[in-house]
Amino acid sequence: MHFPQLAAFTGGDGLIRVIGHRGARGIMPENTMEGFAFTLNCGVRLLEFDVVMTRDGVPVITHNHSLTGSIVRDQAGNWLQGEEPKVSDLDWADLENLDVGGLDGRSDYGRRFPDQAFLYGARIPRLSDLCELIAQPDYQDVHLMLEIKSDPDKLKNTTARADVVAAVVAEVRALGLTQRTLMHSFDWTLLAECKKQAPEMPTSYLTQLPDNAADIGEDHAAPASPDLTKAGVSVPDLVTREAGALWCPYYLDVTAAQVARARELGLRVAVWTVNEVADIDRMIGLGVDAIVTDYPGRVQRRLLAQGFVWSEQAVLAR
Amino acid sequence: MHFPQLAAFTGGDGLIRVIGHRGARGIMPENTMEGFAFTLNCGVRLLEFDVVMTRDGVPVITHNHSLTGSIVRDQAGNWLQGEEPKVSDLDWADLENLDVGGLDGRSDYGRRFPDQAFLYGARIPRLSDLCELIAQPDYQDVHLMLEIKSDPDKLKNTTARADVVAAVVAEVRALGLTQRTLMHSFDWTLLAECKKQAPEMPTSYLTQLPDNAADIGEDHAAPASPDLTKAGVSVPDLVTREAGALWCPYYLDVTAAQVARARELGLRVAVWTVNEVADIDRMIGLGVDAIVTDYPGRVQRRLLAQGFVWSEQAVLAR
Repeated sequence: MHFPQLAAFTGGDGLIRVIGHRGARGIMPENTMEGFAFTLNCGVRLLEFDVVMTRDGVPVITHNHSLTGSIVRDQAGNWLQGEEPKVSDLDWADLENLDVGGLDGRSDYGRRFPDQAFLYGARIPRLSDLCELIAQPDYQDVHLMLEIKSDPDKLKNTTARADVVAAVVAEVRALGLTQRTLMHSFDWTLLAECKKQAPEMPTSYLTQLPDNAADIGEDHAAPASPDLTKAGVSVPDLVTREAGALWCPYYLDVTAAQVARARELGLRVAVWTVNEVADIDRMIGLGVDAIVTDYPGRVQRRLLAQGFVWSEQAVLAR
Repeated sequence: MHFPQLAAFTGGDGLIRVIGHRGARGIMPENTMEGFAFTLNCGVRLLEFDVVMTRDGVPVITHNHSLTGSIVRDQAGNWLQGEEPKVSDLDWADLENLDVGGLDGRSDYGRRFPDQAFLYGARIPRLSDLCELIAQPDYQDVHLMLEIKSDPDKLKNTTARADVVAAVVAEVRALGLTQRTLMHSFDWTLLAECKKQAPEMPTSYLTQLPDNAADIGEDHAAPASPDLTKAGVSVPDLVTREAGALWCPYYLDVTAAQVARARELGLRVAVWTVNEVADIDRMIGLGVDAIVTDYPGRVQRRLLAQGFVWSEQAVLAR
């Protein structure tokens, strides 16, 4: 099957793509329309973001399964205290007035992003909010790396899992964006479900070696991930067996040999989440197709310094 | 005279203002509409920027008197080479298609801002472009710290100097923004001319001690500045003698005693250009009214960490 969107995620001679992680988490609040707008305004037209479903079946853009106290403020402006409620136990009406514009700087998570702007009144977007923006004429070149979060409490609930995929696919189809979207997940079984329900969208396989700790303040993907260490074959081969179009390894895991093998297999390689200059430079050296980053401006600048660009527009200007 | 705009530049109990330096130079290309939009979207509603006049009398927003090779690209996308032409020797038509969206990372200036996004097609704005934006209903809370650059080649040309002030004042008046604008300069004689032509706008006095070197890649203000070391009185007293409303010292120069003296004199104090965490924290400790910064998000976060906010909206949410 031909997937037209893959070109937008494919590098080339002097070309490495930049994908904005949750928008541009280093600069603007993550997974907000404000952050997506900033990223797009920087000329970074590939957006990575996370989708979770509410109790009443609304796909919303947020990373963790539970509302995170260091990110989410109530209508009085206070960060949530106590036990963090699960999004899947709440309705959209419970979420729509929460404020996700500012990190609690006293938290470990907040300290990780000291330059992130602090906004008042930034809301959790619905998937449909982003799709509606991207469907506008000025955004026809924008592509989505849509990560479906796999609920560790529902790994064996095939109906619930199929419902999440169905809701997401319906939104993407409703706005006519299937040719500009990649389905992206740590949960390879969920990606198989995506393939079944929406064969017109390619799939992207996230990996992280199990000895890497979860990033502070974030859900770890391990419960839903396949065991990649026992297969006896390389991860790019495993992704290819799944008929994957793109492999998205954690940047500390990936090796030159793996990138070479992915090339042989015709697999694209995008690395996550690459923020420090030395790491960015190393990924450029590996010749990956794309770099997922919280700091898109920084990656643009490192690419230029190494003689690379990140988009067709930049290729033309070169 | 009552200047309503001064309230927006005045700190208070738990309140220190944030002023975006040339927009947000650390994150977005300086002195561009794209950079101003980003700054405003962060909830930083005080904009500092620089105005120079073209040969045909158009006030444009750019810092140096000459087109800077490390910032300005021609229509073929190449940074300008060779001798840098003066803006005052060029017409607006010569400028309007130049691209100021990206720094040359090989230059000393470019290396100072490694996170600045790289844009294609960002133009030098006219002062009128910014004024037209700010005059819109959604921007009624935005205030301008309008720096008039003093041409060192024309320090004794009183006609030329009066013409620059007249052109700037005309634009601000045309859009009805005099009550939201501060006239800001290192050239105190030019500020006297501002007072004469536009007594309805308060004046803001930039200073930098002469032993501080010019920032790399930038015009130094020294030729136009008064000699502050010979007066035998404090700088805040000198600003008060000029009937200044605001004193804007270089952050390395200012002392607690000077801030206290400014308070006694009823003078506001805004410090430039404060970018590193330790320096931001020191300025917060001094209790200045406002911090001019290339990294508005970073300053927001340091303020919150110290129990401060930067705007009325933030005060209400506190």
